[in-house]
Amino acid sequence: MDGKEVLFMSKGDGEHSYAQTSTFTQKVASLAKPTIASTVDSLLEEGFFLCELLNVADLGCALGPSTETFMSTVIESVQKKCAHSNCSMPEFQLYLDDLLGNDFNTLFKSLSNFSQNYESLSCCIMGAPGSFHRRLFPRNCLHLANSSYGVHWLSQVPNLMSEEGFPLNKGRIYISKTNPSVAKEAYLAQFRADFSTFWKCRGEEMVDNGRLVLILNGREDKDSASTDGYFFWEKLGEAIADLVSEGGFVKEDKLDTLNVPYHTASSEEVRSIVDEEGSFEIEYLEIMGIDRTLPDEDPHSRGRKMAKDARSFTGSIISYHLGEGIMDKLYGEKLPIIIGDDLAKGRRKGISLVLVLKKHVP
Amino acid sequence: MDGKEVLFMSKGDGEHSYAQTSTFTQKVASLAKPTIASTVDSLLEEGFFLCELLNVADLGCALGPSTETFMSTVIESVQKKCAHSNCSMPEFQLYLDDLLGNDFNTLFKSLSNFSQNYESLSCCIMGAPGSFHRRLFPRNCLHLANSSYGVHWLSQVPNLMSEEGFPLNKGRIYISKTNPSVAKEAYLAQFRADFSTFWKCRGEEMVDNGRLVLILNGREDKDSASTDGYFFWEKLGEAIADLVSEGGFVKEDKLDTLNVPYHTASSEEVRSIVDEEGSFEIEYLEIMGIDRTLPDEDPHSRGRKMAKDARSFTGSIISYHLGEGIMDKLYGEKLPIIIGDDLAKGRRKGISLVLVLKKHVP
Repeated sequence: MDGKEVLFMSKGDGEHSYAQTSTFTQKVASLAKPTIASTVDSLLEEGFFLCELLNVADLGCALGPSTETFMSTVIESVQKKCAHSNCSMPEFQLYLDDLLGNDFNTLFKSLSNFSQNYESLSCCIMGAPGSFHRRLFPRNCLHLANSSYGVHWLSQVPNLMSEEGFPLNKGRIYISKTNPSVAKEAYLAQFRADFSTFWKCRGEEMVDNGRLVLILNGREDKDSASTDGYFFWEKLGEAIADLVSEGGFVKEDKLDTLNVPYHTASSEEVRSIVDEEGSFEIEYLEIMGIDRTLPDEDPHSRGRKMAKDARSFTGSIISYHLGEGIMDKLYGEKLPIIIGDDLAKGRRKGISLVLVLKKHVP
Repeated sequence: MDGKEVLFMSKGDGEHSYAQTSTFTQKVASLAKPTIASTVDSLLEEGFFLCELLNVADLGCALGPSTETFMSTVIESVQKKCAHSNCSMPEFQLYLDDLLGNDFNTLFKSLSNFSQNYESLSCCIMGAPGSFHRRLFPRNCLHLANSSYGVHWLSQVPNLMSEEGFPLNKGRIYISKTNPSVAKEAYLAQFRADFSTFWKCRGEEMVDNGRLVLILNGREDKDSASTDGYFFWEKLGEAIADLVSEGGFVKEDKLDTLNVPYHTASSEEVRSIVDEEGSFEIEYLEIMGIDRTLPDEDPHSRGRKMAKDARSFTGSIISYHLGEGIMDKLYGEKLPIIIGDDLAKGRRKGISLVLVLKKHVP
């Protein structure tokens, strides 16, 4: 399965849309505001506040709420710096990238208010359709880029079939404690290839000393089979396995051949790939844990909410593989209970890796 | 009525979509290829073939078929010139602009084959959502722009109500032979304001000596009430008037207050506004007549086809004003007969004004 053909966040702005359900990534974007602001400061201190135009990109922007947080933080940080240095504001070209399957129509409409807020400035909003696993922008163009909760998606599912055509990750949809080490290796190899390409492309597109803020779903443990890395996928895998064992809902070979194009990396994996590729240096790296539960919240009502949220970002891939017919049962009945039961045993944290990187001067 | 809130070409890629029915504008885009090619030559002769990046925009690109013709003509003309001059190809940033209501999702998907055709080159395709009646791009950014069959759309309907709130263009939806001169004046005034703003904005966005190719629906006659300027609107107005007189289908006051945001300009009007605004000089102006009928084609089968085509570009405005319920009767029953009857009397030409303009060096 080719990730870029199938993957998209739920379209539109209705109840089940990503725009409405992506509260976790919106929270992450909000927590990242101070990092974005200080990155803009560092960038401008390189002399870029003398530019007439700042080209800024949001890579894997999806449907908008988080992108709006990012863009307004950038603009307001530049305003503050320009007021302080008594120099005139640059123009902005704000590029919004996502895969071809993304709902750009809804994204553009949702940003019409944003544009009105900054009407006195020159902010040109551009959609940049395409995968960030290839070149998207002209050479030496971008001053600042952001990618929040995107690069853990792989460009394709790792090859987990034997040479004879048998599935090597039976009964699982991702890395897990009990699956063979071949899965861990295949996932890391695919992430290494994709993440390395990501930096090579951005290295060509960004100006020297340009900055990139990267936030990805990651893990604290060095071992990729540690549970902190794959909470959603583990629970989703369990829910699908239940539907197999209950008979008739999902065929066993459908589960055996389903693997998701996703990798939760450790900070060591991220650091080694960036260093090896060589276009960027890491200026800052933080491991941020965010509670997935709210204090005093009922685990099962939380489970229902999280299952609904999960559908908006995992649904396109699962329905492509298992068919639309199973979706309501899977996300509406099975998954809420499984997540709720898990949350009842104790709190769960989502781990985010937050990095600021600077483009090397060759 | 604000044109930019309501106007869009029929979405998607189905039978009634603009992508499938816009054969006339596709024909115009195809006929304009030699003009585009020679404009690219003139541009490169200004020294721009030494640029590392060419920024190219298509303003009011709609859903793609014509935009693809334009973009491939540009790329292939540059390739030819570079091969001849033995210099390396620039990168391209291809901006596709249209109103927020345009179906960018379908547009982006339709261009994935286009990107593959030019994979060995660096062509970055960007969506630029917004009205070309305001600034869309950074200052001094564009080398070449194209706008085909867009600028005859006005940013808003001319004010055709009396101070007391009575409609001044009763029984008509556009200029016609029989309506008062106030309509002609109001339409020209709105076109003058919009077209002047268009040049002011493009003047800021284009580099010195940059080129803009403009194709618009126009008229040959100096008098805006001459029939060659308003064929579609005249027939559509007659069809709506029939639905009023047949009783019950459309209320009279709905027709009396409907005026379309469109103006078919004469070459003299175009020239005087460009000269007065002052950012550009006209290098080339051609009045092109294209037969709307094919030889030996049955007028009524042609009428059915033209009514279907008309729905894809006039439908959003008409259904906003008269309601979706009347659309099938209007475009499927009334309009085909009225157009067919007219074509049976003789051939009809569509008049296009084709211009090449050069940005003045201040």
